[in-house]
Amino acid sequence: MAQPKPPMHEPCIRVIMRPRDLNHQGVVFGGVVLSYIDEAGFVEAKRQVYHRYVTASIGRVDFKAPIHCGDVVSFYAQTLKIGTTSITVQVDVYAEYVEENNKRVPVTVAELTYVALDRNGKPTPVFGPRGPNEDH
Amino acid sequence: MAQPKPPMHEPCIRVIMRPRDLNHQGVVFGGVVLSYIDEAGFVEAKRQVYHRYVTASIGRVDFKAPIHCGDVVSFYAQTLKIGTTSITVQVDVYAEYVEENNKRVPVTVAELTYVALDRNGKPTPVFGPRGPNEDH
Amino acid sequence: MAQPKPPMHEPCIRVIMRPRDLNHQGVVFGGVVLSYIDEAGFVEAKRQVYHRYVTASIGRVDFKAPIHCGDVVSFYAQTLKIGTTSITVQVDVYAEYVEENNKRVPVTVAELTYVALDRNGKPTPVFGPRGPNEDH
Amino acid sequence: MAQPKPPMHEPCIRVIMRPRDLNHQGVVFGGVVLSYIDEAGFVEAKRQVYHRYVTASIGRVDFKAPIHCGDVVSFYAQTLKIGTTSITVQVDVYAEYVEENNKRVPVTVAELTYVALDRNGKPTPVFGPRGPNEDH
Amino acid sequence: MAQPKPPMHEPCIRVIMRPRDLNHQGVVFGGVVLSYIDEAGFVEAKRQVYHRYVTASIGRVDFKAPIHCGDVVSFYAQTLKIGTTSITVQVDVYAEYVEENNKRVPVTVAELTYVALDRNGKPTPVFGPRGPNEDH
Amino acid sequence: MAQPKPPMHEPCIRVIMRPRDLNHQGVVFGGVVLSYIDEAGFVEAKRQVYHRYVTASIGRVDFKAPIHCGDVVSFYAQTLKIGTTSITVQVDVYAEYVEENNKRVPVTVAELTYVALDRNGKPTPVFGPRGPNEDH
Repeated sequence: MAQPKPPMHEPCIRVIMRPRDLNHQGVVFGGVVLSYIDEAGFVEAKRQVYHRYVTASIGRVDFKAPIHCGDVVSFYAQTLKIGTTSITVQVDVYAEYVEENNKRVPVTVAELTYVALDRNGKPTPVFGPRGPNEDH
Repeated sequence: MAQPKPPMHEPCIRVIMRPRDLNHQGVVFGGVVLSYIDEAGFVEAKRQVYHRYVTASIGRVDFKAPIHCGDVVSFYAQTLKIGTTSITVQVDVYAEYVEENNKRVPVTVAELTYVALDRNGKPTPVFGPRGPNEDH
Repeated sequence: MAQPKPPMHEPCIRVIMRPRDLNHQGVVFGGVVLSYIDEAGFVEAKRQVYHRYVTASIGRVDFKAPIHCGDVVSFYAQTLKIGTTSITVQVDVYAEYVEENNKRVPVTVAELTYVALDRNGKPTPVFGPRGPNEDH
Repeated sequence: MAQPKPPMHEPCIRVIMRPRDLNHQGVVFGGVVLSYIDEAGFVEAKRQVYHRYVTASIGRVDFKAPIHCGDVVSFYAQTLKIGTTSITVQVDVYAEYVEENNKRVPVTVAELTYVALDRNGKPTPVFGPRGPNEDH
Repeated sequence: MAQPKPPMHEPCIRVIMRPRDLNHQGVVFGGVVLSYIDEAGFVEAKRQVYHRYVTASIGRVDFKAPIHCGDVVSFYAQTLKIGTTSITVQVDVYAEYVEENNKRVPVTVAELTYVALDRNGKPTPVFGPRGPNEDH
Repeated sequence: MAQPKPPMHEPCIRVIMRPRDLNHQGVVFGGVVLSYIDEAGFVEAKRQVYHRYVTASIGRVDFKAPIHCGDVVSFYAQTLKIGTTSITVQVDVYAEYVEENNKRVPVTVAELTYVALDRNGKPTPVFGPRGPNEDH
């Protein structure tokens, strides 16, 4: 079993929320946050080893704090496990509240599993017998 | 405890996937599907009783089949439980594969909890003492 | 002349209107509704028989009622006629008014004609001599 | 009946088509063109006299030529008629084909009617007794 | 050195600003204007001679006046210089203020340089020995 | 003159480029990068002191390396100068090339000036007599 590379201390994704990210009630749409969580986990998986990946699952996500328009939102990721054909990543989300002096607030934590695919869209080993699989 | 209205037999959301929904590898981005799941659950919660809602949690989501550009994707929702200040909804996702004679394929199932909020953003009873809460 | 498959009782497209769908005066932009009408007709044409289609025309569209942010909008379609190289579809649009207890309101009806194209972008028979044309 | 201001010789809207404007078959989506037609007519109506307008109808639209990614598309508009509470505008659409030395091709012509609304969303005279209505 | 074609008197790009173009403070986002400036320069470069172009640089841009939601914004471009493998274009931006009787206001002027690329992404002569380079 | 807070070592904005960010030639659109540069400078300005800001100018930007779909792009910012009513920020842009083992490549450097605005949209002191201006 391969050892994952150590976590980055920087966010994998960091964005500022804009009006187009709001739902019709003026709050940041949960689905927008889920989209960035998926992107952040994907960036981390590719940092371990480059493949074509698909999202196989996302574990339970609890939203502990709201996000507002203008807040900066950071998505930190670390690899938990590298399996035969999959990588499991944890994503931690923090918001900086623009209206409260950039106060940093934990929003949620999610665990995602990505499957590495070969050229035909079939699962492929993350690491081949002699190192990272070249079939992408 | 209030009884939920019976499920609709029609989808809460139905869309056709477009190029802007693809990730850089040409497959439909998991985050896009998660966004529509969140919207569909929200449509169902509002069908039970109108409130300002926020997504409090989304349970584990397993993606059992891929979605391609041009596929029609349907999001069916039913209310599982109406709590004091929250509603729990199940969303079932099906794709019709455009390249395979519109073959219908189950993609995933998700369980989401929404919290009803009052004008100040605080949790509020879904049903007040004399019926649906009017404070929205 | 081929007989069209009977109409679906479910919508071809159903969406919830979001802030990004508004014009600068805060009402849902007519062009957004026209876009979904075009998509819904396209979904119906493909349900009859799969082809590459282009929109050849859209008949007069009268908007009988406004649509607001947060309303759920449903696009029902039925095939009116299958011609040699074209399919004509009727799309009926209904809104459920979020602020009025999901009251269902007819918004408009449109008639669209789609032309089936072959690989070179030339019109091609919708049905060949022995059934649906395979040249897509 | 008020006389409309003479037509501009410049386009009301001119854009270049981008990948996000394509449908899943790689051609410019009819709905995108309809959206810009609606915007162009709206720009022309506001040029005559400023109001809050809604699109009341769009007459039959025949697409006579395709539009490709990278083409520059121009939307010319002229006011046909100013009614008591409405303005009728004609929009002419031309594409310049990027792959054919910017050859200019007529794409379609559409006729749209916009209704002027007052602050309460009710139809209001386009011109009041002493000139343009100020109630917007 | 090739002589540039004379300037068009019409805008290369003209758009109406929509809510999705606003930043979280409700004003038109500077980045949106920069995007259209880049598109307008690109339209002008292609009008001189068709190539695959990349933006090599954009000179200093001073924003002299704000742009509001609903304003019509026009981007005029003229070619300043055609170099061996590059074209330099000036883009002038004007807004028509919807709330001030369509008053026309200069917003900014920018100078951009585009490099012509061949099929392999390498700089290529804008004009070959016998006229426009065909290698795109 | 106020001393700026020391630079963050983390990016102000970090994103992964998606198909919707491409121009019609399949390369990342210069305007998209300019938009994120503007956002990153704005995040840095707000980190110094919270205000409503508008972009007053962006200095010359030279694009030294291309960006591709799937690349992760990071925008680092530092405050160069805090003036009476304005803040000047430098933004450094780096891409990680997804197809080249996440090789890190400098893309460009830009210098932007933001003006702090009061409630009426007039320039206002960045720092008042007794510390950060509260008039936002």
